[in-house]
Amino acid sequence: MSEQNDVHRRAQGLYHAMSGLEGPLSSGVSAPLDFTAAPRAAGGPRSVLILGAGVGGLTAAYELGRLGYRCTVLEPQDRTGGRNRTARNGDELYELDGDDTPVRTHTCGFDEGLYLNLGPGRIPYHHRRVLRYCAELGVELEPYIKETTANVVHRTGHTPPEEPWRNRRIANDTRGHLAALLTATLTEDDEQSAQLRNLLQKFGDLDEDGEYKGSTRSGYAEPVDVDDYPTPAAPPLALADLVASEFWKSPFYQPVDHLWQATMFQPVGGMDKIVEALTHAITGRYDVSVELGAEVTGIELTDGGVTVEYVQGGQTHTATADLCVSNIPLSVLRKLTLTGFSPDFRDAVDLVPFAATCKVGWQANRRFWEDDRNQIYGGISWTDHPITQVWYPSNDYFSPTGTLTGAYNFDENAEDLGAREPADRLSFALEGAAQLHREFKDRGTVPPELGVSIAWHKVPYQLGGWADWDPSRPDHMTAYQQLLGPEGDGRFYVVGDQASPLPGWQEGAMMSAEYVVAQILGLVPLTAPARVRVPDAKVLTQGLG
Amino acid sequence: MSEQNDVHRRAQGLYHAMSGLEGPLSSGVSAPLDFTAAPRAAGGPRSVLILGAGVGGLTAAYELGRLGYRCTVLEPQDRTGGRNRTARNGDELYELDGDDTPVRTHTCGFDEGLYLNLGPGRIPYHHRRVLRYCAELGVELEPYIKETTANVVHRTGHTPPEEPWRNRRIANDTRGHLAALLTATLTEDDEQSAQLRNLLQKFGDLDEDGEYKGSTRSGYAEPVDVDDYPTPAAPPLALADLVASEFWKSPFYQPVDHLWQATMFQPVGGMDKIVEALTHAITGRYDVSVELGAEVTGIELTDGGVTVEYVQGGQTHTATADLCVSNIPLSVLRKLTLTGFSPDFRDAVDLVPFAATCKVGWQANRRFWEDDRNQIYGGISWTDHPITQVWYPSNDYFSPTGTLTGAYNFDENAEDLGAREPADRLSFALEGAAQLHREFKDRGTVPPELGVSIAWHKVPYQLGGWADWDPSRPDHMTAYQQLLGPEGDGRFYVVGDQASPLPGWQEGAMMSAEYVVAQILGLVPLTAPARVRVPDAKVLTQGLG
Repeated sequence: MSEQNDVHRRAQGLYHAMSGLEGPLSSGVSAPLDFTAAPRAAGGPRSVLILGAGVGGLTAAYELGRLGYRCTVLEPQDRTGGRNRTARNGDELYELDGDDTPVRTHTCGFDEGLYLNLGPGRIPYHHRRVLRYCAELGVELEPYIKETTANVVHRTGHTPPEEPWRNRRIANDTRGHLAALLTATLTEDDEQSAQLRNLLQKFGDLDEDGEYKGSTRSGYAEPVDVDDYPTPAAPPLALADLVASEFWKSPFYQPVDHLWQATMFQPVGGMDKIVEALTHAITGRYDVSVELGAEVTGIELTDGGVTVEYVQGGQTHTATADLCVSNIPLSVLRKLTLTGFSPDFRDAVDLVPFAATCKVGWQANRRFWEDDRNQIYGGISWTDHPITQVWYPSNDYFSPTGTLTGAYNFDENAEDLGAREPADRLSFALEGAAQLHREFKDRGTVPPELGVSIAWHKVPYQLGGWADWDPSRPDHMTAYQQLLGPEGDGRFYVVGDQASPLPGWQEGAMMSAEYVVAQILGLVPLTAPARVRVPDAKVLTQGLG
Repeated sequence: MSEQNDVHRRAQGLYHAMSGLEGPLSSGVSAPLDFTAAPRAAGGPRSVLILGAGVGGLTAAYELGRLGYRCTVLEPQDRTGGRNRTARNGDELYELDGDDTPVRTHTCGFDEGLYLNLGPGRIPYHHRRVLRYCAELGVELEPYIKETTANVVHRTGHTPPEEPWRNRRIANDTRGHLAALLTATLTEDDEQSAQLRNLLQKFGDLDEDGEYKGSTRSGYAEPVDVDDYPTPAAPPLALADLVASEFWKSPFYQPVDHLWQATMFQPVGGMDKIVEALTHAITGRYDVSVELGAEVTGIELTDGGVTVEYVQGGQTHTATADLCVSNIPLSVLRKLTLTGFSPDFRDAVDLVPFAATCKVGWQANRRFWEDDRNQIYGGISWTDHPITQVWYPSNDYFSPTGTLTGAYNFDENAEDLGAREPADRLSFALEGAAQLHREFKDRGTVPPELGVSIAWHKVPYQLGGWADWDPSRPDHMTAYQQLLGPEGDGRFYVVGDQASPLPGWQEGAMMSAEYVVAQILGLVPLTAPARVRVPDAKVLTQGLG
């Protein structure tokens, strides 16, 4: 759609030719570039300061390090990964207090061996960069189950309090009713109408008269025994009850979106295995050093390159390099002392809000959700309680214990939950979860004191879940475009999912890093694309629903 | 629904009380009984001959052995498991020739470490007995992915020959069109209609006017890059084209059926891990012996018990016991010399046909289906070619090589495929598979000579995939009922999925074994249930479609 894109496509054509990839991609994002075969410019910049060791920064360090650039990664925290964080026993959680001072709020009390992803938690099959880096770096993946028909939905005042609706009943009784309604409107008698009726019959499991009387798809009427053939759960949920519940607002149909379609993956052992692998790959292998506890306070574009001021171990340091790649969240970057940057760039950095989002995690001493009564293996249950959703683990099935994501919410719900003290968040989240499963009421099964919570918008050096890009706002278009072009004649670049079409997704961070590396290599122009589409962060993180 | 069932329920109530299980089951089959707590009758029969070491026979041997019965299992083949069979390098395949003589037709040529399930291949989450035995016996399970939106569908003359439709396009463009059609019929303006329109908008991803113009659910228009926000694949497949293709006959909606809903499982390393574990559990642990190569030729009900004649190592032997549990397929049992059985029982054994079904398996030297172009991880692609379906492995993702199920078909398609020589089956199946993926045309990627095939209706000692029960036939009702009551005053029992509501499923075999053990223990009456429902084998193995 633009000159930039054409150039990028040409670079990809090179990769396609090299990889033997024929024909169109299945879908999803562009195919990753393979820079190991990229032509390298003689001379030119050789040293790079990378600010922030999130997934975008680490990816840039990996690619630039491999290309022979001397990279220094400055990371303010005592760990790499940024929002890619997996909670384990003893992990300390910090948030900003009322005075914007980082305070340790609580410590993860999970048993040894248990873990929970506090940031990204799944990888779509079409996020080819994440999958490629996992393969390249030896990160073992296993399926992440987004939806099972045993999951439940709670809608206050609509679903029975002690027996929330199962996914399979909502999904299939709705299909049946809609198919029957449509069948009733068909009056033509030609072949196409006959075929359409046949489609609707199969689509909704209608009877021979085109009516919906219930389906075994929604479950069986009673447990099947040797003398009982499976018969449909009856009667089906009434369409009026389904419609009145507005179950789709939960958002029940999120798993249908391309971003969450099967087959999704997760790293075995925790999402931070990706961070570990990237960190391991760059450390001591290429000319890359990673400085932890190094908090950047100012960035100055100079004639010769970039000078960065940072505090490490109580001392103020400066570092200089030919280039600077910033993975610092815009929400944090805008608070630093920026010198030599254009007003347009400053405006872009200042503009975009970062999203509030919270997660809560539980240790369960018994995997009650997998028992004969619940029969849930992975997937998500939905509720109109402010916790929004509960995730069941897609790993270590049939083992004695496990962890549950006890809340993952957005916007006002996240603001409210994040405003509470951690202990208060946990008791509030338990109330919500108990509407889905009464087992949450049993402190022996789900010990409240072992819970963990995070309000990403209050986490130091993050200050938000993702850049909340809104395509309906013209100023977001200008800002997004501005961020895709480097500052200072190609000395300063922004990376991260914040500068990608996939806010909140690791693929976005990796794509952004790839784009910036391509710019540094001269494979794509240094000017911003002439026209851009601004990502819809809400849709991309919460779904079309 | 009957006195028998009442008694069975009482037995289950005992189990529920013991297990702490409260409230109704999620769905699916009845909860498994735990016989370790069952009251044992003093005196009574103590020795049991178990004929056939399929899953039903092994389960009966495990339960009866644990209860202290002396069991002898007679198995004609050189392995246990029956139709639960996993093909590996060097495994020999036998089928009956025109004279009903077993002939070795070919040998599995897979590389070491590769395997393919020739019989059952997945476990529904509500098949509680299979899951319980796996947990009890230490069989590790992993998710079996039934459907991914990257799977493809080929419909001759309707889908482009070189680019079959993706599952996500069929599924979501159909949803969109149907939702739009129904929306157009809504004329009321009350709140419920507004809510229904809102449901349809979310259900089909309609635009604000209630029209369907395409959805990102069907995939993206072009690969997303930094300057491209995901936009829907456009234009959507036309409803007329979808309807004309009759894609649902493939059967596209099988994964919606309760039996195939997520989350399904498979044993790590092959389905026969269940057989291995059961065989290991009974061998040398309880008073159970397993005789391989022991082909039963006659069964006589005597005053004192049961006498079985069998051939082993060229010698004819007889064995006697108080009781006999037969896991011999009815298709085979009816050919044996049966003495002392009632005419009604003989009629029942003679009546039910056994289903023809074939599988073909391929070794692939490159997991091409997982590459950037195909992006398929597990699931099934469908075709109207007689091979019907191709399965992708739900294990060892991202590894270099793998195996594919290259055909799994039924009825006439299976009769025709099974009538061919194995080499001819393989070349025929390759043609069909190549309509789904052109990579099948490359002998280096999918070497034809390494393929394996099985026509279950021609396999010695099996003679069919499953009992083809048909609920529309009154004589099937009589026969099914007859088989649920023992012969000879409780001396002879039939087990297997053939005498269960789940033909073709291991859960049925285990449920049947449990039922017979409960009869032997006196927990349920020896008389057949007064009324039964006959399973619909076609629906239960091929789906509602």
